[in-house]
Amino acid sequence: MGIYKSRILGLRAKLKSEALDTILVSSPENRRYLSGFTAIDPQPTESSGFLLITQDQALFATDFRYKIQAEKELPQLEVFIYEKGLVESLETIVKRLNVQRVGFESTHLTYALFEKSREVFAESQLPVELVPTQGIVEDMRIIKDPHEVHAIEMSLELTERVFEEIIPTIKPGMTEKQLSLQIEYLIKTRGAEDVAFPPIVASGPNSSMPHATPTDREIQAYEPIIIDMGAKFEGYCSDMTRTIFVGEPEEKIKEIYRIVRKAQLHAIQNIRAGMKTKMADALARDIITQEGYGDYFGHSLGHGVGLATHEAPRINKSSETTLKENMVVTIEPGIYLPEIGGVRLENMVLIKKDGATVLNKNEHFYDF
Amino acid sequence: MGIYKSRILGLRAKLKSEALDTILVSSPENRRYLSGFTAIDPQPTESSGFLLITQDQALFATDFRYKIQAEKELPQLEVFIYEKGLVESLETIVKRLNVQRVGFESTHLTYALFEKSREVFAESQLPVELVPTQGIVEDMRIIKDPHEVHAIEMSLELTERVFEEIIPTIKPGMTEKQLSLQIEYLIKTRGAEDVAFPPIVASGPNSSMPHATPTDREIQAYEPIIIDMGAKFEGYCSDMTRTIFVGEPEEKIKEIYRIVRKAQLHAIQNIRAGMKTKMADALARDIITQEGYGDYFGHSLGHGVGLATHEAPRINKSSETTLKENMVVTIEPGIYLPEIGGVRLENMVLIKKDGATVLNKNEHFYDF
Repeated sequence: MGIYKSRILGLRAKLKSEALDTILVSSPENRRYLSGFTAIDPQPTESSGFLLITQDQALFATDFRYKIQAEKELPQLEVFIYEKGLVESLETIVKRLNVQRVGFESTHLTYALFEKSREVFAESQLPVELVPTQGIVEDMRIIKDPHEVHAIEMSLELTERVFEEIIPTIKPGMTEKQLSLQIEYLIKTRGAEDVAFPPIVASGPNSSMPHATPTDREIQAYEPIIIDMGAKFEGYCSDMTRTIFVGEPEEKIKEIYRIVRKAQLHAIQNIRAGMKTKMADALARDIITQEGYGDYFGHSLGHGVGLATHEAPRINKSSETTLKENMVVTIEPGIYLPEIGGVRLENMVLIKKDGATVLNKNEHFYDF
Repeated sequence: MGIYKSRILGLRAKLKSEALDTILVSSPENRRYLSGFTAIDPQPTESSGFLLITQDQALFATDFRYKIQAEKELPQLEVFIYEKGLVESLETIVKRLNVQRVGFESTHLTYALFEKSREVFAESQLPVELVPTQGIVEDMRIIKDPHEVHAIEMSLELTERVFEEIIPTIKPGMTEKQLSLQIEYLIKTRGAEDVAFPPIVASGPNSSMPHATPTDREIQAYEPIIIDMGAKFEGYCSDMTRTIFVGEPEEKIKEIYRIVRKAQLHAIQNIRAGMKTKMADALARDIITQEGYGDYFGHSLGHGVGLATHEAPRINKSSETTLKENMVVTIEPGIYLPEIGGVRLENMVLIKKDGATVLNKNEHFYDF
């Protein structure tokens, strides 16, 4: 059986247990997971199509612009072309599918689209109930099958190849933006579908901003340069961070580097299936806190990676998910000293019964 | 007065007339319009921050990752750092702002975020009413001030410079993807903040898909190649399409090219302030329909361009907006013949009292 067919079967079982007649899938990642449709949404507020799955039907609703691509990529689905927008055709679609309890993805659908849909059903006097759902498809995506793990490995391999290609070219005087654009260009021309996210290059004081946008600042010797990058391969993301130096940095930076690396290794060595995500977070956070830098590690330890760069499970101070075999997550502790600089190190791991397998092959770490 | 200050004053007047105590701004473009905050959202479902404007306060709520950037870029705003997420801090924020009628952007906020916020207020027994709003900031953005027109012109100039740089390099055998990546790389290295959208390169039969994703297909002589590209400069987008040929195409393609160009010119020459957008759409559509290709022009004639590539006003068969001076819109008719190929031509125009000024300088059109 094809992967999309088996995923749709899995979804149908979930719909049954939630007593839903159908679910309106609007999240692009969930859409791709269930159907293989590769088009991205032109804007967050503009969709390239919606899936509607029932127990015996599977419909893909889109507009004229995506007709040919949908018919080509989705032979297993009925393609429905709406003239104006989804909402204006909802009555027709719901009648055709003959459904009453219609689930929708509440963390993706906007309030306006929900409200307009509700009005459509009220006006047409169709006995349709819109049911907010959360995580139905995401919960399926959280465990990776071998096909997915392979795609993630390929994606990460590509990322690491580009990282290793770019490192020898880094010289003081290059700007963060130049370096970021080179990385992006290389990722895209070395076989990736896209970058997973715009590469972050944050140098010197900018490295104290965990999500800095690359600037025209020139990279200098001896300062931390955080490079956070990832590719998208067959839809699957990779996400890796290294902090690099051109020339040896000052002692303070070496100190936080040692602590971050120690925290990362400790987390990698001890994370395993069965552990709560907040306990996994504590593996690294406790070390950083003991060393006196707890206030300077303001983000979470990690997150799941798959069709989205950031997906379930979240690994932070308060997250209660239990880790399971074949989840893929990042381990990325950091310490950020305002005005001075920061260090972040990020690997991806595959959770196993008794531990975790590091998916990274790159070992660009410093022995300060 | 600075532009952000005057925009916030404009917003305050609107809040008054809508009897809102504040509005929660979650749309990244609206956020940038009102504050100048340049960070993008890491994912559509993950925000880099929210604005809350009242009659006497202006607060920017974000997480740790954006603290330094927010304090640097937004000296005029109070920066509030939330630990978990916005919702978990809503009670504190609402108490601090002392507000009751809280507007939110219903076309941007997800149903889940709305629902969780409502629960927060219900549990805390705060007398807060969440009011869905639409287009409050977008309606301000629809008319461009001279500063904005200038940024759009700079953005388009950059796009055209890259287009003219890339044209002589196009040779049969290059793939659509290669060409698209070159365009993207050049846009980003020639001074743009970003591309406005991933460049579309659609050749031969692929050109019959209006929103085709570039593929590994090799470009061939004599066939239509649609190039749709745009830059982002100081936040402002440009959007331009040309259909080009390496060698003269067959008669059928020449025929649709002539019709599309005729329709475009007719629309450009006759569009003006005071006209309804559906009438503007008809200017081009009627010509294409009279020539027998109405069924092959499945999208709208154009759209507004500004901080978003696609924004108000929409110019389509049924849109009822009245065009006003200093709107910036695209005029982009197309004809798409399945399996054979398509032609689309897109210029940007600035609406004037008695007509429209074409913002494009590029004249890469064919006299077939």
